[in-house]
Amino acid sequence: MEIGASLDKLFAPLADATLMQAVLIQLFIVFLLARIFAELFIKLGMLSQVGEILAGVLIANLAIGGFTLASGLGIEWHPTDPSVFHEVFEVIANLGVIFLLFSVGMQTRICELRSVGRTSFTVAAFGVLIPFILGFGLIMGFDIFIAKDPNWLVHALFMAAAMVATCIGMTARVLTEMGMLDTIESRIIIGAAVVDDILTMIVLAVVVSVAASQRAGTGMDLLGMATSIILAVLFVAAILLLCSHGVPRLSEMQRCRLTREGIVCREREWPWGFEPFPLAVITCLGLSAVAFVLGLASIIGAFLAGMLFAEFAYEKLESKFKGINAFLVPLFFVYVGMRVELSGFGGMVLLTVCVIALAVLGKYVAGYLGVVLTDRSLGSREANIVGIGMSPRGEVGITVAYIGLTAAAITQEMYTVVVFMSIMTALLAPPWMARAFRSKYGEGGPSS
Amino acid sequence: MEIGASLDKLFAPLADATLMQAVLIQLFIVFLLARIFAELFIKLGMLSQVGEILAGVLIANLAIGGFTLASGLGIEWHPTDPSVFHEVFEVIANLGVIFLLFSVGMQTRICELRSVGRTSFTVAAFGVLIPFILGFGLIMGFDIFIAKDPNWLVHALFMAAAMVATCIGMTARVLTEMGMLDTIESRIIIGAAVVDDILTMIVLAVVVSVAASQRAGTGMDLLGMATSIILAVLFVAAILLLCSHGVPRLSEMQRCRLTREGIVCREREWPWGFEPFPLAVITCLGLSAVAFVLGLASIIGAFLAGMLFAEFAYEKLESKFKGINAFLVPLFFVYVGMRVELSGFGGMVLLTVCVIALAVLGKYVAGYLGVVLTDRSLGSREANIVGIGMSPRGEVGITVAYIGLTAAAITQEMYTVVVFMSIMTALLAPPWMARAFRSKYGEGGPSS
Repeated sequence: MEIGASLDKLFAPLADATLMQAVLIQLFIVFLLARIFAELFIKLGMLSQVGEILAGVLIANLAIGGFTLASGLGIEWHPTDPSVFHEVFEVIANLGVIFLLFSVGMQTRICELRSVGRTSFTVAAFGVLIPFILGFGLIMGFDIFIAKDPNWLVHALFMAAAMVATCIGMTARVLTEMGMLDTIESRIIIGAAVVDDILTMIVLAVVVSVAASQRAGTGMDLLGMATSIILAVLFVAAILLLCSHGVPRLSEMQRCRLTREGIVCREREWPWGFEPFPLAVITCLGLSAVAFVLGLASIIGAFLAGMLFAEFAYEKLESKFKGINAFLVPLFFVYVGMRVELSGFGGMVLLTVCVIALAVLGKYVAGYLGVVLTDRSLGSREANIVGIGMSPRGEVGITVAYIGLTAAAITQEMYTVVVFMSIMTALLAPPWMARAFRSKYGEGGPSS
Repeated sequence: MEIGASLDKLFAPLADATLMQAVLIQLFIVFLLARIFAELFIKLGMLSQVGEILAGVLIANLAIGGFTLASGLGIEWHPTDPSVFHEVFEVIANLGVIFLLFSVGMQTRICELRSVGRTSFTVAAFGVLIPFILGFGLIMGFDIFIAKDPNWLVHALFMAAAMVATCIGMTARVLTEMGMLDTIESRIIIGAAVVDDILTMIVLAVVVSVAASQRAGTGMDLLGMATSIILAVLFVAAILLLCSHGVPRLSEMQRCRLTREGIVCREREWPWGFEPFPLAVITCLGLSAVAFVLGLASIIGAFLAGMLFAEFAYEKLESKFKGINAFLVPLFFVYVGMRVELSGFGGMVLLTVCVIALAVLGKYVAGYLGVVLTDRSLGSREANIVGIGMSPRGEVGITVAYIGLTAAAITQEMYTVVVFMSIMTALLAPPWMARAFRSKYGEGGPSS
């Protein structure tokens, strides 16, 4: 308690600082810790994001005599009485996830979807459906029989949606490092991950609509729910149509090829006389706001805005967003970790294990079935690799859970479960996949 | 009044939105307007920043039946009762100025200072001294004899400091477009502008220290003032020493040349195994926080942090900061414009004219004297060109005034005067300089 009190005193001058001065000190300390953990995890061969999330967990949960770094910096989260310091930090972190999803969208090109085969589509569709059903069933059972929580419908919907999104980043890196990008399995996995992102956005739109209708009405407002679901699907469909028919016609059609660097599309010239970057920022903010007005999650708008610019995502535009993301996205991941509450999590270990098991199993079965049902030339070895490759979850799943948490659609404990599930699947899948690839192709890659 | 009330109603849903949703809508509308004005001003051959500032002036001052866009968006500034919406917007805009000054610092290389000749040094030193004395005298006289304001010392110090900084951006662009970068006058102007930036930071450090001592004590606390001035100068000197002796030794020495693109230094490899960008962000935030703890303006820390990385400011690092700046800096300029109050400004027109006249005269005399006193090979025609080239003020002067306003060290009216002075000198100087160059070299540039 002594140390905690003196640590508290050390940070006391912050309370007298102006808001901007406090923000500078907060951002400095948080960004510094995030980077130290990120570098540490990179050195260990893991994702930097996992390090950033863990930095956030420690900032908010590592208590020395009642003192946490989050409380010292004034960015501790109080459910009933948020401080301005916390709110400003939250907004900056949330801008990070907006730009993150814009960048994810910018890597999702309609032309890629066209080049994706029937197998990838099936893998992606099963990969959304099966984990969703498994997750929904698990949480429904948990809420009804164990937690006895009347909000089981919204909980189960959000948790199921958070279990849906495949994280392609880690998989693609492993494939590239092993020189396995030219294999049929890689084509299927990468194609399915692209479709997966879009399907996840539609699922999220539907889930947010249902949760909002639930919260607003006293009972189930079926007409209102149907309206908002239709609105959501129409919004997504309109943007997809604009992507596939409007934007490409602005100049010539696009051709994409799968290369060692992933799917590569020919760079296209920006057809107008003004800078593309400000227009991209305006579109990102604007569609996020529209999504909010339509009752959707704002990240859906950001993702769709990114897709609109995917056709023009040449070096110059991408490098500028890389700059923004390199500053803002680590702050989002730290914030994701800060919202994890370790105290009282002990009782949830069993649920976490179940969620991880069903998340991996769901994607594995989806990948396996998708391959063997659509392509007779592929056998169980190929289906096995695809199943493993689809299993890591990443930032999109965490984002869905974070949206659920801030909308009070899932509980604090369930949020923590999803964060751990994402971290664990991202850590487990790569070595598992490497072994599966090696057992088929040997050490030297597909050519040997 | 009718239209104002219905406009108010249009924005009413914002009040019910969560903070993040409101921020998205605010940023979207503000960024959109800023960009439209910026494109308009670029088309007219002027600086985009001027357009962004004017967008801000309109957002806060264009009232339709009592409704301003700033009030509709909840980002109106209330001196006594700031809303969370406003505070969040202010923090984001202020992060913009931190990164802006980092980038200014990143373009200020110690090796450039070494290559700057005696003439540039003299021009820069006079260019700080003469406008400072003229500005100080003008505001002292205005406050004592006309406004009868007892705070004349702090007012005069800040206003004089805001009149000191030359804006090289516009000048360099004009020189490049005319193909005049190889002339002796261009070398002197660009060299002087680099020295000018550093001298301005020292002046600002001293002024902020004096203002703080004034505010804290009941009278003049000479010992406290001296302490903080010494602290400020030591901080700046320590970083400069580190720049000139510490950083270059990390790899080999740097060579710079003046080319058509300005002063160009050989690119240097980043010597460590980790990414330079996160370290640059951490240093920027950290030194800004240190500057605040030392009682200096935080932008001084950001500027000095930029200087530390100037030696490594190769393409990759610079392009990432360009991305952050392209998002945040327009928001800062809009905010600068939003803090301008047009109502009640009528009485200050004469003072504005005087400030503009003295600002131009001061820099002109400094440039002229600096040339004729140090280089006997140059005549009055060359001195005339240098004098004109030194006269535009820009973002640094505005930033100094903005710091003065937020610290209540200058009045609302004086802040508006500085913003208009910066805009007017930036608009007037380029065509004037083009004529002076043409009258010496003719249409074709120095080679003809």
